[in-house]
Amino acid sequence: MKENLKFYGHDTVALAKRYGTPLYVFSANCFHASVEAIRRAFQKTKLDVTIHYAGKAFLTKAMCKLVAQEGLHLDVASGGELFTALQAGFPAEDICFHGSNKSNEELQMALDHRIGLIVIDSFDEIDRLTNLTTPEDRVDILVRIAPGIEAHTHELIQTGKVDSKFGVPASMVPQLMETLQELPRFQLKGLHCHIGSQITETEGFIKAAEKMLEIYAWIQKNYGQSFDYLNLGGGFGIPYLPQDPCIDLNALFTDLGEKVRDLCTEYDLKIPQLMFEPGRYLAATAGVTLYTVGTIKEIPGQKTYVSVDGGMMDNPRPALYGAAYHAEICNGKDEDKPVTVRISGKACETDTLIDQILLNDPQVGDILMVHATGAYNYAMASNYNRLPKPAVVLLMDDQSDIISRRETYEDIVRLDEIPSWLED
Amino acid sequence: MKENLKFYGHDTVALAKRYGTPLYVFSANCFHASVEAIRRAFQKTKLDVTIHYAGKAFLTKAMCKLVAQEGLHLDVASGGELFTALQAGFPAEDICFHGSNKSNEELQMALDHRIGLIVIDSFDEIDRLTNLTTPEDRVDILVRIAPGIEAHTHELIQTGKVDSKFGVPASMVPQLMETLQELPRFQLKGLHCHIGSQITETEGFIKAAEKMLEIYAWIQKNYGQSFDYLNLGGGFGIPYLPQDPCIDLNALFTDLGEKVRDLCTEYDLKIPQLMFEPGRYLAATAGVTLYTVGTIKEIPGQKTYVSVDGGMMDNPRPALYGAAYHAEICNGKDEDKPVTVRISGKACETDTLIDQILLNDPQVGDILMVHATGAYNYAMASNYNRLPKPAVVLLMDDQSDIISRRETYEDIVRLDEIPSWLED
Repeated sequence: MKENLKFYGHDTVALAKRYGTPLYVFSANCFHASVEAIRRAFQKTKLDVTIHYAGKAFLTKAMCKLVAQEGLHLDVASGGELFTALQAGFPAEDICFHGSNKSNEELQMALDHRIGLIVIDSFDEIDRLTNLTTPEDRVDILVRIAPGIEAHTHELIQTGKVDSKFGVPASMVPQLMETLQELPRFQLKGLHCHIGSQITETEGFIKAAEKMLEIYAWIQKNYGQSFDYLNLGGGFGIPYLPQDPCIDLNALFTDLGEKVRDLCTEYDLKIPQLMFEPGRYLAATAGVTLYTVGTIKEIPGQKTYVSVDGGMMDNPRPALYGAAYHAEICNGKDEDKPVTVRISGKACETDTLIDQILLNDPQVGDILMVHATGAYNYAMASNYNRLPKPAVVLLMDDQSDIISRRETYEDIVRLDEIPSWLED
Repeated sequence: MKENLKFYGHDTVALAKRYGTPLYVFSANCFHASVEAIRRAFQKTKLDVTIHYAGKAFLTKAMCKLVAQEGLHLDVASGGELFTALQAGFPAEDICFHGSNKSNEELQMALDHRIGLIVIDSFDEIDRLTNLTTPEDRVDILVRIAPGIEAHTHELIQTGKVDSKFGVPASMVPQLMETLQELPRFQLKGLHCHIGSQITETEGFIKAAEKMLEIYAWIQKNYGQSFDYLNLGGGFGIPYLPQDPCIDLNALFTDLGEKVRDLCTEYDLKIPQLMFEPGRYLAATAGVTLYTVGTIKEIPGQKTYVSVDGGMMDNPRPALYGAAYHAEICNGKDEDKPVTVRISGKACETDTLIDQILLNDPQVGDILMVHATGAYNYAMASNYNRLPKPAVVLLMDDQSDIISRRETYEDIVRLDEIPSWLED
């Protein structure tokens, strides 16, 4: 009998048995290794770099603790993410607040807690923040610029284009600077851009840095203002499938370091601290999902469907983006009997998790592990078909524990109310 | 000053003010009108028809009350939907349990509460139900057949194909009948099929009925068994946009009635009760979503982005299926100033709710109503970006009340736990 599949030293079948399925499993050790990979890559460049974990990828109170322990800053994209961080005691000064349409209430929360940086996304947000502050206040801000750079990635996740809901177009920087000149309460610490997601080539980042430093030079020349920070956003691509490319961080930081130093010399700029905001890069491969195989159907003349006890409600990315995932049977088998199957989810619609994959002799009751589900899975989970959200278990060294409790049916109905006039 | 937009007699701006935004609003009167439209259409045919509301479209405890008051049966697709119905006191005998991968625990719940019908989807489910019962038990079942009929609709929502995770292929009916002959505990009351979703042509339903009655005739000839029911599933298409087609129910039921009577005569079958399972048809147009406009960006040389305070977290259908929606500004304006805009959601990604639409002079603070969000919106909602789920308000005549409470930030963190070994 072969051994069960392990994930960072933990027997996956034992985890499934102990915590039930579907189950998200997240490895603190893998998260740490990815943080270190980024650190090693930029330390060679002698640039001043800070890493902000993009909480939208996966955030719970325990994740905030982990992010703090790694010495990372935190990006939040909503009041809910900010609330989570504050509840976990995450240092407010290390929080950066993003989002293309922040509400008054969200901005007020950020002001009340004196978070580190608010990334202003529009002139409307300047108006809102102006209404929420007095001329004597001082608020540290970045402004998100749409640099007109298109990353080599899926069109839906290209977000650096000029034609985007995000940011202020580069062409409107003069208007932006004129507006901010009148509002000294806003301390413009630098500019931000984000060119897209799941980027595996370095060229887009280099072009973004060029464009942004060109803007920095223009601002210095016209307004005499220099900036402490340059935030180049996130988007580092990861391999979802074994054969997928991964971004080469050593090449990225080497090329970027050279480019930034050269341009700062050329434009006579002080070299800003570079900020990066990886979410997927740090969280995706640190997470896996464990399912139990429930139904196997061999459709004569067609294909074999292996149905699991989760699906698009815990991982909507295949349905949303056509995202591909890798999976393996966890329980050890005596022999290798590879079978090509489709992995289907439990939702009452087509719900294909993996279109086609080789599994070793799948049987009803087997535990299946889907790889690289640590980012944008729990974060995007729904209660479609009124199914409870799975639990999340954190692994650190030889320890494991729940960091997000499994929902119950009671949780599912907890928001439901029946008006008295509807009662029988 | 023009009047505010009304929805079934209710001032939408007043609803937004009273209950906050984003807000789902659901009209019991519209739901009732759609039920009546189906009833009128089939009553002309003199066929015996029952309508099962497909809860996966939108189910809360109050919805179960409404469904019961309309005299409809209820389809549930999971333990969570069944739990909701039971909690609301919905008559168990009028519940039909669907799903392509029901768990032991879900099947046990169905048995414990003696629900009306279990729709068996696979041989694995027959095994599971056999293990959960004794030879003396009697369980009323339908079996879902994949009839090999492809509806004219989006490929992802075609679910009647032979190559599908759903049902038993028509070619395996002999094997199915042999299996069930050995298991008299299962009372096979009829067969079920579902050819897809959002179907606006009647042809697919006619073909499905033909195929299913051909199977009925084969079973009667070979096993001497006749059936009480024929369940032809759901999938009635609705108009999401003003110019969209809607299924012609009068034509459908007239043609279907004729076909069913002719074939039953030809095959010497008793005419079965027909079951239909509309979800979207009853719920979609009964619901709208109210948003507040937060940010408006005119990108020079490109387009205007109108950002609202919800998005793919409350309506993932545009991102999932490329679904199109219609929207209007709710607050009355003195003049007509139509502007072509894109409506963007609040999620920290592209999040396009409506790609291009004419709105009347959109301004920050305006209330926007998106039409036909009553189905597969609240049901598919997520907490992406840790945003709380909106409330749902039910309208009936001149009354309005909450049927699903708005989530709070406390709700967002309620499942989070921090293991002691992760504390500082």
